[in-house]
Amino acid sequence: MSFQLKAWSAERLQQVERALSAWVPHKAPAQLGEAMRYAVLDGGKRLRPLLVLAACEAVGGNALAALRAACAVELIHAYSLVHDDMPCMDNDVLRRGKPTVHVQFGEATALLAGDALQALAFELLAPAGSAIPDAVQARLCRLLANAAGHAGMAGGQAIDLAAVGRSLTEAELRHMHRMKTGALLQASVMMGAACGEVDAAATRALDTYGWALGLAFQVVDDILDVTADSATLGKTAGKDAAQEKPTYVSLLGLERARAHSLELLEEARTALAASGLPDTRALLALAEMVVERDN
Amino acid sequence: MSFQLKAWSAERLQQVERALSAWVPHKAPAQLGEAMRYAVLDGGKRLRPLLVLAACEAVGGNALAALRAACAVELIHAYSLVHDDMPCMDNDVLRRGKPTVHVQFGEATALLAGDALQALAFELLAPAGSAIPDAVQARLCRLLANAAGHAGMAGGQAIDLAAVGRSLTEAELRHMHRMKTGALLQASVMMGAACGEVDAAATRALDTYGWALGLAFQVVDDILDVTADSATLGKTAGKDAAQEKPTYVSLLGLERARAHSLELLEEARTALAASGLPDTRALLALAEMVVERDN
Repeated sequence: MSFQLKAWSAERLQQVERALSAWVPHKAPAQLGEAMRYAVLDGGKRLRPLLVLAACEAVGGNALAALRAACAVELIHAYSLVHDDMPCMDNDVLRRGKPTVHVQFGEATALLAGDALQALAFELLAPAGSAIPDAVQARLCRLLANAAGHAGMAGGQAIDLAAVGRSLTEAELRHMHRMKTGALLQASVMMGAACGEVDAAATRALDTYGWALGLAFQVVDDILDVTADSATLGKTAGKDAAQEKPTYVSLLGLERARAHSLELLEEARTALAASGLPDTRALLALAEMVVERDN
Repeated sequence: MSFQLKAWSAERLQQVERALSAWVPHKAPAQLGEAMRYAVLDGGKRLRPLLVLAACEAVGGNALAALRAACAVELIHAYSLVHDDMPCMDNDVLRRGKPTVHVQFGEATALLAGDALQALAFELLAPAGSAIPDAVQARLCRLLANAAGHAGMAGGQAIDLAAVGRSLTEAELRHMHRMKTGALLQASVMMGAACGEVDAAATRALDTYGWALGLAFQVVDDILDVTADSATLGKTAGKDAAQEKPTYVSLLGLERARAHSLELLEEARTALAASGLPDTRALLALAEMVVERDN
């Protein structure tokens, strides 16, 4: 029988939502907790948490550590959206079909909520008195911090800022996306793997899979920005073109961008097949979902 | 011979400056690295790094871990200033005698630089292939994340935001400052201690010392905001009153605020004396410096 991603995901999404709801504070001062919960709960595809859990299962890792890692990486993603939507960045008012955090709570609270979500991610990874080995905690902090920082997501956003209105080569565009969205998606995979013990071949394979999936995600994002409407996306469609941002579609055209996303899926599939891991069906199904999604 | 804080500090400040200059990236994309370095280098009293190093020395801890912790806590402090100065928060244009980061680099880059500095703090604490034990890395990440997040600095800032124009009781004001500035100062002490092994009595003593010093710092800050000029402070003086922020001076008056800072110094001194640690002279001298400083 073929692998059922829907069923596999449903159970894990429930776990992740429950954990996020427990770990993102109700009671932070003033409106901070409310803004943090608003930014994180009831929204998003939770692709990054699912990648963490799928990678952890593929390597037979520590499920408790993986659930924390899954939530931590989602918190980093959520904080980046809060800050990215602010007036000084993308100035976006709609996210996941709801007013963005700064529209709902004001800019100052949005800024602080983003900052507090980033800190909370590391709080989740290094809990006091837990059964998660210190080495795993340290490894998870390392992977997440590297992926979120200047050499990863934040660096990619800086390139993105500087690129508005300029034309980029495909290599420059790929470099930007590897950092801006790829690094955190790739880190999701590697954090899942870091919850267990993996040999060098499997590590290499998961590394390749993560980068291919991360880039495919962005190529498809660029395609959907052109082809989907705002209601389906749950965010403002067509904003790349409106902001004159370089994208895979503006660079390659729609058809070649589509073909490129399929090549990347094939690369991810080949890597998994070479990993030597006994069951990578969830990872494969997630990569397929990334390329075939319509929002 | 009495303890010479100047000489003790000079050597350690040099180490910290060298380490920060090495670890805050030159080459981050676009202007990100430049903005990060601008926010961190050549400025500030480095009180938090000195507290980390003094506490580590008091417990005979791992000096390599302490240098990383010292820089990490300074990065968190620096990022909080960058975000705090932004137009949607305090809208301040002068910091350490220089234009603030958003004035120099624009708001979007300031936002990203702050975000990347927070991530970099955790990168420093969990280096790959280092001689720092995993348990120490995990402990340092835990202490820093807790102090920076919703239950610490970010939470205190949210209370501060909500308190503008309102009157607070002394208990409410103390609670705000314990979170807003106290948590990170206290964490500096506990992170230094976490670089070694400490018994329960010393841990309790350092905990008390850290909170007393943290609160004293804020009381003196409130006093200086009224009594010093902008040139001496290196930031805009008188802004608490201008923004109708509740302070120790507005609540207690200048004389009682001064007396309170001396009580807190006494509390810190008593705690150190009870710690059972062989040499706490640097910690004591730092507490005295906090209370007696004029900027």
